Amino acid sequence: MTGPTRLSLDAAQALLARALERADTSPANAAIVAAALVRAEADGQRGHGLSRLPSYAAQSRVGKVDGHAEPRVEEVRPAALRIDAAHGFAYPAMAVALPELGARARTHGIAAAAIHRSHHFGVAGHPCEDLAAEGLAAFIYGNSPRAIAPAGAARPLLGTNPIAFAAPMAEGPPLVIDLALSRVARGKILAAQKAGETIPEGWALDPEGQPTTDPAAAIAGSMIAIGEAKGAALALMVEVMAAALAGAQFGFEASSLMNAEGGPPAIGQTILAVDVSALSGGAFGARMGDLAAAYAEVGARLPGTRRLAARAAAEREGIAVAPALLAEIQALAE
Amino acid sequence: MTGPTRLSLDAAQALLARALERADTSPANAAIVAAALVRAEADGQRGHGLSRLPSYAAQSRVGKVDGHAEPRVEEVRPAALRIDAAHGFAYPAMAVALPELGARARTHGIAAAAIHRSHHFGVAGHPCEDLAAEGLAAFIYGNSPRAIAPAGAARPLLGTNPIAFAAPMAEGPPLVIDLALSRVARGKILAAQKAGETIPEGWALDPEGQPTTDPAAAIAGSMIAIGEAKGAALALMVEVMAAALAGAQFGFEASSLMNAEGGPPAIGQTILAVDVSALSGGAFGARMGDLAAAYAEVGARLPGTRRLAARAAAEREGIAVAPALLAEIQALAE
Repeated sequence: MTGPTRLSLDAAQALLARALERADTSPANAAIVAAALVRAEADGQRGHGLSRLPSYAAQSRVGKVDGHAEPRVEEVRPAALRIDAAHGFAYPAMAVALPELGARARTHGIAAAAIHRSHHFGVAGHPCEDLAAEGLAAFIYGNSPRAIAPAGAARPLLGTNPIAFAAPMAEGPPLVIDLALSRVARGKILAAQKAGETIPEGWALDPEGQPTTDPAAAIAGSMIAIGEAKGAALALMVEVMAAALAGAQFGFEASSLMNAEGGPPAIGQTILAVDVSALSGGAFGARMGDLAAAYAEVGARLPGTRRLAARAAAEREGIAVAPALLAEIQALAE
Repeated sequence: MTGPTRLSLDAAQALLARALERADTSPANAAIVAAALVRAEADGQRGHGLSRLPSYAAQSRVGKVDGHAEPRVEEVRPAALRIDAAHGFAYPAMAVALPELGARARTHGIAAAAIHRSHHFGVAGHPCEDLAAEGLAAFIYGNSPRAIAPAGAARPLLGTNPIAFAAPMAEGPPLVIDLALSRVARGKILAAQKAGETIPEGWALDPEGQPTTDPAAAIAGSMIAIGEAKGAALALMVEVMAAALAGAQFGFEASSLMNAEGGPPAIGQTILAVDVSALSGGAFGARMGDLAAAYAEVGARLPGTRRLAARAAAEREGIAVAPALLAEIQALAE
């Protein structure tokens, strides 16, 4: 068995874009999607990285996702954008949403963009980080296929429903908080199943709502939320903000984001951007500096340190791709 | 020992307002604060209810909170309000903020109000519920004195930092989600200490960051967040939204909200209001109806059921007040 191959970020992006184009995605959309997957991989977020390419290509090829979709932006109120991802990939919709949203947040103090007919949106922190790099605070709420049961129920209804938040710091890169509301990522359970291992109690429930250490029972059952009832309530909040607010499909209505079966998932994402300088009376930068100093004083690090270290290493050294995955992507790109 | 006395909501409110006026709070502010405490008590949120009155009165009497403060609203952007609670109670600031915020959310699609020089704001869900009753979705972020340690630290920096969210339903009262980011309320630890009992492991850490079952060590140490690192990250997000964004004091800078010692806590709250109808292309109401139906189908109840039942009972039967607390409030009102 050979070790992983190292690819530069540019080389990886070109390869992925070619594979997507071969799978009936427009060159413009392919470039945006490839850049998002490589950015995730570079940040050490492998679950949203190159491993997604084969399923994206398969979904584009059969039209579950429309690789040629052109997202449309509608201004429904001066600070509110309704965005139709048109059953395409989420990233091109984000790409049109962010500059429009940022400009409106600066003019009005806050703005919202709600995206419907959307798809897997990868690393939730990235769109927020981009807005924070422009000096705005930002939230994103995205829903995902059902995984978490409401409090008091055995059957899952809610997605693991990531929340991300970012804010500019007085110095250095933005603060980025990015978390799913399940105790562990579903991918860890899939990995345990593949390896023939059990999972720790506390990760998941079986289809009867009982604790389980069997990954198959967990996959048929539901994921446990952080803080149990509290996390399930937060997942509900995300479901409302991402799906109901966008007029999109709920997690319990969506097809899988992982394979080419079924119709378009048509899930939603909502992004908020806030002019921190105006609202704080100009105090925001100094306050964030004080906060960073307080963290340093108690010996804590602000979230995101590991991600930035991974990114710096990937920019220097490229990314390591497992031979099987690389061969699969190369075959798709031929 | 005699049992609790039952007071009608109106009688309770009049009594509390009188006690606050005697403690150097203006009649207008006293009426608003009394109504908020009685509303909390009626909802079964006793930690934010009548039990707060003696400490509120003590704080007003010494000027830690300015009972005569008149909150000021500044429009810093068309959809962004900066609100100075002027070291007064938080509720009068909320009372001026909500109608202005709601009107701007309807015009612009979304609006924000950030309150600084503020104080304890009681039940986080209530301002959100009021906006949702007007057909808007709403968030509130409020910070509180330090209680939770950042991931990797032993000393607390972050408050238990409530988040609340509310949204209108197709039928019936709004959906209200309201939770603190600690696993349990600090009040439960204080109650255990008073009763001479130990606390379960998993609630709190001692001053060295080690698990403890001793309530005194827990109070000197820190509260454990839901989902540990994830909850601490969410508490940080709330701290940024409530304090940095409002140009207010962080939890680790704030004096106690519970006694008359120290200067004004000067914490912050930020409220967001969203026009759900515009953003969803008119789909929001129907989508929320579908969500409620899905909950019913899996045998789950939307959050807030218990609160509504408590409120209905209190409206019918009044609230039960323990004799010692009632005597204390009556003495303050004389």
